[in-house]
Amino acid sequence: MDFELLTDGTITDVPDFWAGSAHCGLKTRSKRDDICIIYTPLDTVASAVFTTNLFAAAPVIVCREQLQQGRNIKAVVVNAGIANACTGQQGYLNCLKTIKMAAVQLNLKPEEVLATSTGVIGKQLPMDMISRGIKECSQKLSLKGGHDAAAAILTTDKIKKEIAVKVNIGPGQDVVIGGIAKGSGMIEPNMATMLAFLATNAHIEKKALDKLLMQGVEDSFNSITVDGCQSTNDMVLVQANSQSGVHIKEGNAGWKAFSKAFFYVLQFLSKKIVEDGEGATKLVQVTVEGAAQKQAAKAIAKKVANSNLFKTAVYGQDLNWGRICAAMGASGQDFDPDKVDLYLNEICIVKNGLEQEYDAGAAQDLIKGRQMEFRISLNQGKQKSVVWTSDLSHDYVSINATYTT
Amino acid sequence: MDFELLTDGTITDVPDFWAGSAHCGLKTRSKRDDICIIYTPLDTVASAVFTTNLFAAAPVIVCREQLQQGRNIKAVVVNAGIANACTGQQGYLNCLKTIKMAAVQLNLKPEEVLATSTGVIGKQLPMDMISRGIKECSQKLSLKGGHDAAAAILTTDKIKKEIAVKVNIGPGQDVVIGGIAKGSGMIEPNMATMLAFLATNAHIEKKALDKLLMQGVEDSFNSITVDGCQSTNDMVLVQANSQSGVHIKEGNAGWKAFSKAFFYVLQFLSKKIVEDGEGATKLVQVTVEGAAQKQAAKAIAKKVANSNLFKTAVYGQDLNWGRICAAMGASGQDFDPDKVDLYLNEICIVKNGLEQEYDAGAAQDLIKGRQMEFRISLNQGKQKSVVWTSDLSHDYVSINATYTT
Repeated sequence: MDFELLTDGTITDVPDFWAGSAHCGLKTRSKRDDICIIYTPLDTVASAVFTTNLFAAAPVIVCREQLQQGRNIKAVVVNAGIANACTGQQGYLNCLKTIKMAAVQLNLKPEEVLATSTGVIGKQLPMDMISRGIKECSQKLSLKGGHDAAAAILTTDKIKKEIAVKVNIGPGQDVVIGGIAKGSGMIEPNMATMLAFLATNAHIEKKALDKLLMQGVEDSFNSITVDGCQSTNDMVLVQANSQSGVHIKEGNAGWKAFSKAFFYVLQFLSKKIVEDGEGATKLVQVTVEGAAQKQAAKAIAKKVANSNLFKTAVYGQDLNWGRICAAMGASGQDFDPDKVDLYLNEICIVKNGLEQEYDAGAAQDLIKGRQMEFRISLNQGKQKSVVWTSDLSHDYVSINATYTT
Repeated sequence: MDFELLTDGTITDVPDFWAGSAHCGLKTRSKRDDICIIYTPLDTVASAVFTTNLFAAAPVIVCREQLQQGRNIKAVVVNAGIANACTGQQGYLNCLKTIKMAAVQLNLKPEEVLATSTGVIGKQLPMDMISRGIKECSQKLSLKGGHDAAAAILTTDKIKKEIAVKVNIGPGQDVVIGGIAKGSGMIEPNMATMLAFLATNAHIEKKALDKLLMQGVEDSFNSITVDGCQSTNDMVLVQANSQSGVHIKEGNAGWKAFSKAFFYVLQFLSKKIVEDGEGATKLVQVTVEGAAQKQAAKAIAKKVANSNLFKTAVYGQDLNWGRICAAMGASGQDFDPDKVDLYLNEICIVKNGLEQEYDAGAAQDLIKGRQMEFRISLNQGKQKSVVWTSDLSHDYVSINATYTT
């Protein structure tokens, strides 16, 4: 790797990024933190991508408006427990109110603050709780607050998702990229079914940052699925506060190293979401290669990755490859079934559409592991797409049959 | 109803339709029948619709070829246990061989016989077993064989799906329509994820029968889903043997009555498939009305009906309506979220995109029932679509984590 993974890294490992968390009462079943603020006192350049869901949550609508005007974002309030989605005009006003409260506490202009939410759909935010939470978060802002923030944003997640990497751009020129994410169910981004917050102290222009984020998200958050269900609230935000003084520009020396590290962070966080997918016992990579078009490869990979029959077979540790073919054939994409090869890691299971002789014991060992790859070759072109998915387990059903209202 | 439901009706209640079944060894875990023949000695007009899956099974390819030439179909061999899908040239030849064997036994021309399969993908048919099975089925052909045939075609199904109705077209002019179907998993037709065989003794031209079948399938088998997974093998076949001498022609007196009864039979069988969906505990009707386009209404209804989060909530008897909105918003269809109304049977849950005050106890009672309707109004037009789905239960996972290979 051309960059260094920081031990136990998180978003506040990026210089001059602060975080503070609190329990204000939105998570009713536990005393865990349910609100946090991520903050930098420096001017920033910020980029974000949002859910394409038509029922976009109030905070998505508000954040989209704020960022369309190219604001300098210094603080983000995140609450978990209530999504503030399907909440109409009142939800929209509550989001603006949240922003104002935080701006007052942090002595910022409202246009420098974002507010995001995740949790149950259809409930209004209890603004008295939010108000108390924002006060406490502001008071607790710390340069070591990243880990607590990574915990505060979780809902049905079991593990924190956080990372920080250091990229050396040139002699004495280090840049840090850090991030935290949440997401476990309602995961099929496009864009995106979770929340992720990234920070860097690079000096980078908005156009370049936008470009990197679009590119990176396509092969990370938009290439994962837990249940094929797109959320109303998701967003990925990156803030660059220039603290390092290191300029990152398309074409200059550091561009490639920075991009690589940035894409790694995006992919790391997105794969963590699948690994922690609701009820997941396995992380499965579905690769479709040899396609004529990248979009076709992705559509086929997604169709397989979202097939309940495929996912239950993986859970059952059963190499039921016919379900992969059935899903591929239903993808609406054009390919020749008689040219399809299928590999489980390095074992060739299907060649030219027909089952091969293979070492069943070795294949069994692979499918019993925690991670595996199904690699499909269409043998019709050179394009490729990689998608990550989880299995579909009894626990997925248990979790979602009882989660709220 | 403008027609009479025959008590304990099945396909052989249609005059001069015979059926015979046998256990030839394809179902390895039980001694249940796994092969059957449906037969009429009379000339027929036959129509069929097939899966659109690119990995179409050998029997789908063969039947498509046979029917494209407008053949007079007198017999259909159906085997359960092995799908003869992803079996290449050998699978194709085995299907032709099956047809020839049956033709010899029944003293028919091969072009008067179809062969269809359902079961595990990727395995070749054991032709010695098939041969023995066909002989036995032929010997056991009977005018009362419909019930056994309805059982022989099942795989993971728990219940038989069969029906017969009698339509009075005019004084002394009765026509019977009967049918059997199978399907429990890999159910999201388009067209279609199951097998269904219908018969009638009406005298009807191929063009008219084709038209009725297309129309009827769109609102029955193409409007159901169990797991959103489209199969490689599915087909719906209808044979009309003219035995009644009653002419059914577009525009004539009997057309409307016949159509109504025919659509009823299609819808009855397709709903039975959902009711018997793998692990299903509930039959849920999702209605989308007030749409500008019927296709848009259907796309939204399907997106909701296939949402794992919606289906697990229904299983958990939890009125988590936010998941319905999230699925609608991810459908790719255009509508105004602020105009959406949602009803659970007659109870208004959401009006103009916002949760209403409603009788929570009454809603709970409804969602605890075996059958319910979620009715969504987009308030933007006059088009409507109805889709049927099952819930997603622990048993669905159990069944599919262990089913074969």
